[in-house]
Amino acid sequence: METMLLLLVLLTVTVQSSYMKQNLTSSFNILDIHLNVSSPQLIICGWLLLAAGAKIVFHLSKRLNTLVPDSASLIILGWIVGFILKLSNVDESYFVLDAYIFYFYLLVPIIFEAGFFIPNRAIIDNAGSIATFAVIGTLTNAALIGAFMYGFQCLGAFTMNFTINEIILFSSLISSVDPVAVIALFEKLDVNALLYVLIFGESLFNDGISVTLVYIFLKFHAMKTGCISSFDYIKAAIKFPINAFGGLIIGVFFGIIVSYVTKHSYKVKALNPVFIFVIPYMAFLTAEVFETSGILALVSCGMFMKQYISKNISVYPASAVKFFIKMLSHISESVIYMFLGMSAITYNHYWDTWFVILTIVSCLLFRVISTFALSFILNLFRINKISTINQVVMAYSGLRGSISFGICSSLPDTIPAKRMFMTACIAEIYFTIFIQGLTIRPLLKWLHVEGNATDNNTNKNIRRDSISNRSTMTISGTCLEEIKEAVDRQASSTKRWSKLKHRYLDPFLLRNDIVHDDSFNPNNNFHRNVMKNFFVCSRQGGIDMSVTDHDEGHSSGDLEKSKSSRKKDFSDGVKDFVRSNKIMPADDAISKQPKTGSVEALAKQEIDSILLKHLPTSQHHLSTDIIKCLMEKKILRNFDHECDIEDDFLLEMKKRSQHH
Amino acid sequence: METMLLLLVLLTVTVQSSYMKQNLTSSFNILDIHLNVSSPQLIICGWLLLAAGAKIVFHLSKRLNTLVPDSASLIILGWIVGFILKLSNVDESYFVLDAYIFYFYLLVPIIFEAGFFIPNRAIIDNAGSIATFAVIGTLTNAALIGAFMYGFQCLGAFTMNFTINEIILFSSLISSVDPVAVIALFEKLDVNALLYVLIFGESLFNDGISVTLVYIFLKFHAMKTGCISSFDYIKAAIKFPINAFGGLIIGVFFGIIVSYVTKHSYKVKALNPVFIFVIPYMAFLTAEVFETSGILALVSCGMFMKQYISKNISVYPASAVKFFIKMLSHISESVIYMFLGMSAITYNHYWDTWFVILTIVSCLLFRVISTFALSFILNLFRINKISTINQVVMAYSGLRGSISFGICSSLPDTIPAKRMFMTACIAEIYFTIFIQGLTIRPLLKWLHVEGNATDNNTNKNIRRDSISNRSTMTISGTCLEEIKEAVDRQASSTKRWSKLKHRYLDPFLLRNDIVHDDSFNPNNNFHRNVMKNFFVCSRQGGIDMSVTDHDEGHSSGDLEKSKSSRKKDFSDGVKDFVRSNKIMPADDAISKQPKTGSVEALAKQEIDSILLKHLPTSQHHLSTDIIKCLMEKKILRNFDHECDIEDDFLLEMKKRSQHH
Repeated sequence: METMLLLLVLLTVTVQSSYMKQNLTSSFNILDIHLNVSSPQLIICGWLLLAAGAKIVFHLSKRLNTLVPDSASLIILGWIVGFILKLSNVDESYFVLDAYIFYFYLLVPIIFEAGFFIPNRAIIDNAGSIATFAVIGTLTNAALIGAFMYGFQCLGAFTMNFTINEIILFSSLISSVDPVAVIALFEKLDVNALLYVLIFGESLFNDGISVTLVYIFLKFHAMKTGCISSFDYIKAAIKFPINAFGGLIIGVFFGIIVSYVTKHSYKVKALNPVFIFVIPYMAFLTAEVFETSGILALVSCGMFMKQYISKNISVYPASAVKFFIKMLSHISESVIYMFLGMSAITYNHYWDTWFVILTIVSCLLFRVISTFALSFILNLFRINKISTINQVVMAYSGLRGSISFGICSSLPDTIPAKRMFMTACIAEIYFTIFIQGLTIRPLLKWLHVEGNATDNNTNKNIRRDSISNRSTMTISGTCLEEIKEAVDRQASSTKRWSKLKHRYLDPFLLRNDIVHDDSFNPNNNFHRNVMKNFFVCSRQGGIDMSVTDHDEGHSSGDLEKSKSSRKKDFSDGVKDFVRSNKIMPADDAISKQPKTGSVEALAKQEIDSILLKHLPTSQHHLSTDIIKCLMEKKILRNFDHECDIEDDFLLEMKKRSQHH
Repeated sequence: METMLLLLVLLTVTVQSSYMKQNLTSSFNILDIHLNVSSPQLIICGWLLLAAGAKIVFHLSKRLNTLVPDSASLIILGWIVGFILKLSNVDESYFVLDAYIFYFYLLVPIIFEAGFFIPNRAIIDNAGSIATFAVIGTLTNAALIGAFMYGFQCLGAFTMNFTINEIILFSSLISSVDPVAVIALFEKLDVNALLYVLIFGESLFNDGISVTLVYIFLKFHAMKTGCISSFDYIKAAIKFPINAFGGLIIGVFFGIIVSYVTKHSYKVKALNPVFIFVIPYMAFLTAEVFETSGILALVSCGMFMKQYISKNISVYPASAVKFFIKMLSHISESVIYMFLGMSAITYNHYWDTWFVILTIVSCLLFRVISTFALSFILNLFRINKISTINQVVMAYSGLRGSISFGICSSLPDTIPAKRMFMTACIAEIYFTIFIQGLTIRPLLKWLHVEGNATDNNTNKNIRRDSISNRSTMTISGTCLEEIKEAVDRQASSTKRWSKLKHRYLDPFLLRNDIVHDDSFNPNNNFHRNVMKNFFVCSRQGGIDMSVTDHDEGHSSGDLEKSKSSRKKDFSDGVKDFVRSNKIMPADDAISKQPKTGSVEALAKQEIDSILLKHLPTSQHHLSTDIIKCLMEKKILRNFDHECDIEDDFLLEMKKRSQHH
């Protein structure tokens, strides 16, 4: 069935492509084929369908899925499709990935998704380590690889010559770890959260650094060699942090705009999400206009806005938005890998064996050296040390991918060795994706890297980064543990930043009814979670059906575990609650329901009738006292404000670990 | 606040546009502005933000919203923006709506949304009437307006000459009622369902007819006048139905593909919806390639696929998809109206007073004549006659809009009178939107057209169309009425088509677990509805929180109404059920819950424990017997298979009527 689907899509694409060249007549015919009207759209649709179809087929066939990561399968598909298209002599412009299209359309959803779903707290808690790896790691890698290759060039090892400026262009683009590849790889692996956060954070931020480096050295390349003064080098050294921080600041600025706009427009549900998609894209474009890093702008915009928009817009649009960000990023990723495969066939390569081998060797070598050296330095400051095993995995999982490829193909043709660079870049990408990507699972097994599910302590690793020493991160687990953590968090919430945020930023960017009003509101994530958990407690789950579908993977396991303890908490709590507050069921509740006598039943009735009254009309508010009272009795769990999206990350981790 | 938002967006756009012409330097500067990289995307983003922001502002300011329809406000905004841009001497290419972009990008989401959310049954039940109005109505209008205008041309009334072929081009494009305008108008009005279905159906299908007519006469225009033989006219007469039906058939074909693909890929939730967006667009493009009507292809594809995809894909993606179809259509609509306003300022007009006046007069005149004549003929065959009042409203609500404008601006410049046509077309659009659009509410009040909410009988109007005489349509209402209707429906479900569909199409296009397996599955709409209602019965609402947010408008009212009757049904039913089936609570249920004694409580426990077990793991199945048993006892409501999306239409009608 799946192959049929695949063939169908393939057929459509080839038929369409071959039609392209046919000339059209303009006489009066009953049946006319009028292809030129819509050929670009048809081609794009064809590629989208092919990539989506292929990825779905790979996902559904379990044999393939466990052996090969999706990215590798898509590259192989790209080879096949490229081969077919090359044989059928289709015009190359239909299947060569343009660097502009790659950077301005395909990359954007992936980076935005990463920024939007990244666990803010974990990243901020490990900001020091991640920044060290991303900035210093990338810079040293670029410098060392460049020097290494230039040294061999001086020895006459290569068949093509390049200047030191040109090889630094190449070494900066090849030294950045690719978030797409890393995400695709770690989807299949069961690693602990600290490792995940460090590698994911590094891969996300080092692209910005890499792109900025390439920008600067391209400027030098464009200037005549004689004209470059030492003053220009100083300017470049100033420009580098400006580009990086500029991107971050532009992202935050647009993030503020999104939050502000969604705050005021949340009532118009059908148009509100337009801003969530369009404004971050504007942040990216604006950053590019000012020659700062668009990638970093996207990441910071996504990271900033998510904490506000998830509370500003209502539940239904919020889940639709999250779903679509995921969908767009998945489809982009698939298309990129397919084109990465095709480029191997269709690109006019220049093969230099030594250059390719030395690129691969130097990338791996300096990645290992820099990871170990930086980890050593970081461990001097960290309470929770990065273990040697984690260091090995970090060094080995430095996959290169589509961003390097995209930047490389956008290099100007005036660089004589560009074709050699491209070939080596593609070879390095394939090496990391196929060899490293396929051997990392055996390596992990051999090293016994502790997974997320088996070892509860690893969860806490993320929280003990002495460099930032911020408030702790919530990990969903059993009821009691969370309450303890909530207490911990409240104790440490006197920190300056959260106070500032709460006092100035939140009132400006959050919906008024959420900020000023602590009363009950089902559109508020916090209250939603409270309510969700209330229902879970009172009725032992099985209620919020649409949530079930979404959370499928975890809810059952979660429920089973803590059901009994919750049940006990609930019945004790409700009894206390009812006695101490002297709550009597409302009149209408009595008339509707037969008196079943027990105190618990009465409390249930009361709470039911309150919720029944207030739930469907989202404008009404439930009295805070009841919520507070329930929370004091530990019937309700207090969730962190940001947990709605951060949970996604942890749930995904959990889901993954349950798969294996 | 809202004006601030608006100004901000406006500012961004104008700043961006004015930057465009600035030249760039390539020396090494620390801060560089590099606008040419991303100017088209920035402009598009700017327009999207402006349109979305403006529409939100109009929505939020209640004074404006009740007085003027959104479409009119957006046109006025377009005037203002067009005026500002004209004054600031911005290059016209940045703010003139290209006919190609209009037709291939902006129109598509609107038509697709209309096709996707149109109530299939109501349309099919009134297919004869709608087809008559759409096909014969449009053809006679085009012919009569053309003849009328040509007659005045012979009398020398106009300052510009045109041939009969040219005026028929104009009359065909001006004679089609615009679905965008009609939808925008009826959003504010409280009309009965029959009227809504007839006008909406007509406006949707007559565009296909109109575009096809223009296609054919453009062919004649391109040929030399002497070369046209009578054989060519015969060919044109054959081509017309081929174009119309061809579009419909291509749409259904791609609808089958979507259904089939979603059937096999529903497990990969994150990529599945890609097909739902891309394949219908391919249907549109393919129809255009074969010179058949892309609009009709989109409509039929949307109508066909929705019945399958809503069941094939799971709840969470399905709601996200619905949400995004709505969002895309809203934003397109806003952009179109804004550009429609701007075109009045920016287009190089040719004003001929008599031509404009006679266009407006003839459009209104022949619309009235054809509506009354066709209604008279149709009433001879209909059991449920179209009342005179409905006829008046139908005639008066024949708004012209963006489709006419788009087709008109795509006319070749070789037509000498094109500028005069454009001016008259824009004038006619403004006349219908402003004069007719603003006076229709007083007219309705004056005529006392019965609304949807006040008169329950009008709901049934839709069902009594003798021409098709199909099975009845579900109207959500009180519990009992629905059960009666379900019985009615079952009695009439022996019809041939539904049998064929059930036997051949459903097994091919529906997920296997839905077709072959009648057991319980929460991903199935039918079972979802059953379950939803079960919960509503057993716990008196207040449960499915995410659904609440979605259905906001109606659920509260609905719940209040039927709560008491349901409650009674439930308690009686459960008692019977438990007694007759001798159900005893499972062991673990007893141990967990304190024995509260009553029969009802035991039954509740039993059902809770079953649902608790089976709900989170969507793969498990609840035994059919229990569902059947519950349904026999009328505890559960039997929903129609198609009701999930059709309900949306009716809920919208209800919501509207509650607003007023």
